[in-house]
Amino acid sequence: MSMKIGILGYGNLGRGVECAVKQNPDMELKAVFTRRPPKSISLLTKGVGVHSVEEAKNWKEEIDVMILCGGSATDLPEQTKELVKYFHVVDSFDTHAAIPEHFEKVDKAAKEGGKIGIISCGWDPGMFSLNRLYAETILPTGKEYTFWGKGVSQGHSDAIRRIEGVKDARQYTIPVEEALNSVRNGENKELTPRQKHIRECYVVLHENGDREKIEKEIVTMPNYFADYDTKVHFISEEELKRDHMGIPHGGFVIRSGKTGWEEENSHIIEYSLKLDSNPEFTSSVLAAYARAAYRLAKEGQKGCKTVFDIPPAYLSPKTGEELRSCLL
Amino acid sequence: MSMKIGILGYGNLGRGVECAVKQNPDMELKAVFTRRPPKSISLLTKGVGVHSVEEAKNWKEEIDVMILCGGSATDLPEQTKELVKYFHVVDSFDTHAAIPEHFEKVDKAAKEGGKIGIISCGWDPGMFSLNRLYAETILPTGKEYTFWGKGVSQGHSDAIRRIEGVKDARQYTIPVEEALNSVRNGENKELTPRQKHIRECYVVLHENGDREKIEKEIVTMPNYFADYDTKVHFISEEELKRDHMGIPHGGFVIRSGKTGWEEENSHIIEYSLKLDSNPEFTSSVLAAYARAAYRLAKEGQKGCKTVFDIPPAYLSPKTGEELRSCLL
Repeated sequence: MSMKIGILGYGNLGRGVECAVKQNPDMELKAVFTRRPPKSISLLTKGVGVHSVEEAKNWKEEIDVMILCGGSATDLPEQTKELVKYFHVVDSFDTHAAIPEHFEKVDKAAKEGGKIGIISCGWDPGMFSLNRLYAETILPTGKEYTFWGKGVSQGHSDAIRRIEGVKDARQYTIPVEEALNSVRNGENKELTPRQKHIRECYVVLHENGDREKIEKEIVTMPNYFADYDTKVHFISEEELKRDHMGIPHGGFVIRSGKTGWEEENSHIIEYSLKLDSNPEFTSSVLAAYARAAYRLAKEGQKGCKTVFDIPPAYLSPKTGEELRSCLL
Repeated sequence: MSMKIGILGYGNLGRGVECAVKQNPDMELKAVFTRRPPKSISLLTKGVGVHSVEEAKNWKEEIDVMILCGGSATDLPEQTKELVKYFHVVDSFDTHAAIPEHFEKVDKAAKEGGKIGIISCGWDPGMFSLNRLYAETILPTGKEYTFWGKGVSQGHSDAIRRIEGVKDARQYTIPVEEALNSVRNGENKELTPRQKHIRECYVVLHENGDREKIEKEIVTMPNYFADYDTKVHFISEEELKRDHMGIPHGGFVIRSGKTGWEEENSHIIEYSLKLDSNPEFTSSVLAAYARAAYRLAKEGQKGCKTVFDIPPAYLSPKTGEELRSCLL
C-alpha cells in the first residue's frame, strides 16, 4: 500500500523529488510529466515513464499525490490551481507576498474538486515559517530574526547576468557574523539589511566587458545590492565551473524572548539549516508533505493547507505509538 | 472571549505559567489550586484566588483549560488522568519511558469525559521531540543527535545531595564542544555518553564531610556519573547561593542527513535552546498548548494528544490569514 507519486516538472526540484521518493519506502514514483519533449528526458528511476503535461489529467486514477516542481514566478500560479482539480497536490510556491492570493485560488479549486492542496512547502517558506510560528507562540514577548546563507541566491545571480558585458555570475548571500552574535546574545537590536547580510558576487565577463563599469552597476543596483555591502570578484569561466557549480544554501531563524513577571529571564530559540543542495532539501520537504496530503485525503479532508495546518505526525511513516515511544 | 486558565500546583512551573498567562492577552488566570494550605500562598496576579486541590472539580464550569504543574515522578501520573475527567488539561510529563503508559491512561479518561488532554509539553519532551520528528521525516537517510546543556540537572543534583556529608549541590550538564562540531560537520560518528556530555558538580560539604571520599562516590556513581567525565568542585554555601541559584538549561537537536541519487549531498538541521530559566520556558510551552487545547475542544475533539498531533496554527492567537501573510 505505497503512495503513488507523480512529479510535474523535471528540473532540479523534480529530480530532487525523484531522489527523495527513493529514500521513502512507503512511496513509489508512478510517472513524470514535462513540458519538454518527453523523449528528451531520461529519469534516474528505471521503469517509470515520462509524459507530456497535457496528459497529466488522464493519470488521475493512477496517482495519489502529484508533486508540482515548477517555478513560483509563472508555473505554480497557474499549475497548482489547475492540477488540484484532479489530484491531491503539493507545491513549493515561495513568493512570500503572493501566498495569500495563491492560497485563496488553490483553496477554491481544491474544495470544488474535493482534493487537498498543500502549498509553500520548502524551507522558507516552510521549515523556517514553522520555526517562526512555534518560537513566537512560546515566547510572545520577544523579537525574531531570519538570516539567509551562506548560499547561492538565484534571483541575485540572474540580476547580475542581465548586465551588459556579463557572461555568467554567481551571487552568495552571507549572514554577518557580528549580527548573528548580537542576536544570540539577546541584544534585540534593530538591524538594517546591510548589518545582516553581505552579498558576494563572482562574475565572468564577456571579452569586451568593462570591469569597472560593471562593478559599479552591480553595487549600486537598487533593491538587489545598493542596500548591502557587496563584494565583486571577477573570475574566469573555468574558475566559475570549477568552484561555483554547487547550489548550497541555508540560514538561521532566531527568536530572542523574555519570560518572568518582570521579564527578567532571557531565552534564545535558534533553528538553522546548512544545505549542500537547496533544491534537494526543498524536494525532501515536498516528499514529506506529500505523505501528509495522502493521509489528510484518506480522512476525507479537502482544500488548501500550509505547513501551519498539518499535524507533524502526518509527515511520518511511523504510527502514533511508534512516535510516542521513539521520538517524544 | 479570553480563555480562562486554571493552574494546579504552584511551584516554579506554576509561577512560570502565571507569568506566561500575563504575556498572552487572550488568556486570563481564573484560579490556582494547591496541596499546601491555600492561605500560605500569595500569587503575583492580583484578584485571583488560591484554593485547595480538593476543590478543583467544583470549578469545572469556570475554567476552560487546567494547566497541571506537578512533577512527573508522582504527581502527574495520578493527576492528569483524574483531572481530565473534569477539565481540558495540559501537562509537561517528562519521564520519556513512561509516556506510552501515561498516554493510554489519559486517553481513556479524556475520551470518557469528552475532554482534551495534551501531555508532555515542554522542551524535551516537547520542542526537541517536534524537531526530531520534522528532521527525521525530511531527511530519512541520516542520524540524529540530542545534546543537553549547559544547564542544571535536577536529578543529578539530587543524587549528589543524597550522599552522606553533602549539605547542598548543583550539577551542570555540559555538551562536549568537539562532539557538537563533529556532528555539525556531518561525520555521523557513534558517540558514547562520555564523548557527548561533561558533568560538572558544585558541592557544599557538611562540617565533617570527607572531601576525598565524597568526590570518589560522585564520580563512580553508576548511571548518574560513572559513564561521564565528571568534575567536582567543593565550594562554600555562600558561593553556591551567590553563583548557582539560577536554573538555566538548553541543548541541541541536530540531524545530519544525505540526499541525492547516490546520497552525494549532505544537510545539517540544527535546533537549539539557551534558556535562563528551564521551568519558565516549559511554562511558556504549556501556555501555548493550552490555547491549542481550547481550540481543539471548541471543535469537539477529545482524547489524549501530544505535540505531534497538534497543527502548529492552533498554538497561535493569530488567524490563518494573519499567519499566512506575516509568518509563512
